[in-house]
Amino acid sequence: MGRWEPNARGRLEQAALELFVERGFEQTTVAGIAQRAGLTERTFFRHFTDKREVLFAGGSMLQELLVKGVAQAPPDAAPLDAVSGSLQAAAPHLQQRGDYPMQRQAVIAANPELQERELIKLAGLAAAMAAALRDRGVPGPAASLAAEAGIAVFRVAFERWIAEDCRPELATLIRDSLAQLRAVTAGP
Amino acid sequence: MGRWEPNARGRLEQAALELFVERGFEQTTVAGIAQRAGLTERTFFRHFTDKREVLFAGGSMLQELLVKGVAQAPPDAAPLDAVSGSLQAAAPHLQQRGDYPMQRQAVIAANPELQERELIKLAGLAAAMAAALRDRGVPGPAASLAAEAGIAVFRVAFERWIAEDCRPELATLIRDSLAQLRAVTAGP
Repeated sequence: MGRWEPNARGRLEQAALELFVERGFEQTTVAGIAQRAGLTERTFFRHFTDKREVLFAGGSMLQELLVKGVAQAPPDAAPLDAVSGSLQAAAPHLQQRGDYPMQRQAVIAANPELQERELIKLAGLAAAMAAALRDRGVPGPAASLAAEAGIAVFRVAFERWIAEDCRPELATLIRDSLAQLRAVTAGP
Repeated sequence: MGRWEPNARGRLEQAALELFVERGFEQTTVAGIAQRAGLTERTFFRHFTDKREVLFAGGSMLQELLVKGVAQAPPDAAPLDAVSGSLQAAAPHLQQRGDYPMQRQAVIAANPELQERELIKLAGLAAAMAAALRDRGVPGPAASLAAEAGIAVFRVAFERWIAEDCRPELATLIRDSLAQLRAVTAGP
């Protein structure tokens, strides 16, 4: 069915984001996305189940990267260092994408339903990293705490990253945010 | 409209939870809840917008308690200690409710839609505590990190609490979980 479309997936992602930014998420249709990408609706549905999924399709690749990063951390790395190292290693993949992450975040911030979906995806990333830590022998509660603290570190770093015009290195901001978490959690 | 129903709200909550446990959340209707409570559907809708809301109605009281707890922490309390102290102070309110929190959690764990709602409510609690920390002069990123780390501490403590038969003090488990977070985040 259907001829091969060079990079159809990437073109659909780009077209969808453009339309979400221009018209708003609610007002954008799958037909409109396909038209903007110069593709058919059928091609759209070969790649995505609905227009919301376009915004979250990168999540499974990110999850794979993060789990692999935790698994491959040095054997003596402390749990939160394994998590943070993995997040820092994944950062360049987000940075490569130019304005995409910023525009995506603006679309999500404007829509409560998308914010809910984003929260669920982040909780999924935390659960996957916690499982990877348990596979390294970290006890359950410590694994959950380290993974969830890592996601909090990432969120704060990511918010700073998209807010700053000068585009600092995301990996550097993750390191800064980790240092802040350590300062905040340090005992009295 | 309608005569005064002594503790209608509490009876509806209890009836709803019983039915969710017995029949499952999906299979329970508002009509069935009202009948079990010996009340009318009209009375149900004076208290709750839908059957899902019955499970989350306590959230706004909890949020008020937590925000007040953070605001009233000693002026020199570190951000995470203000958050953790507030969570510990709120713990007895959950413990007073007997089996309710355990049964509620079992219902939520069995239903992905309810799990999503629970995540959103927890994110709301974190955001409210972060705002309360900012009101105390804590900078934005540190406030977010302390509040989200606090919610992670609470979740881990709460999971242990509902898992253990001997019902330890929830406040003690929150303190233990905080100590674990400190161990996990301690620098190398």
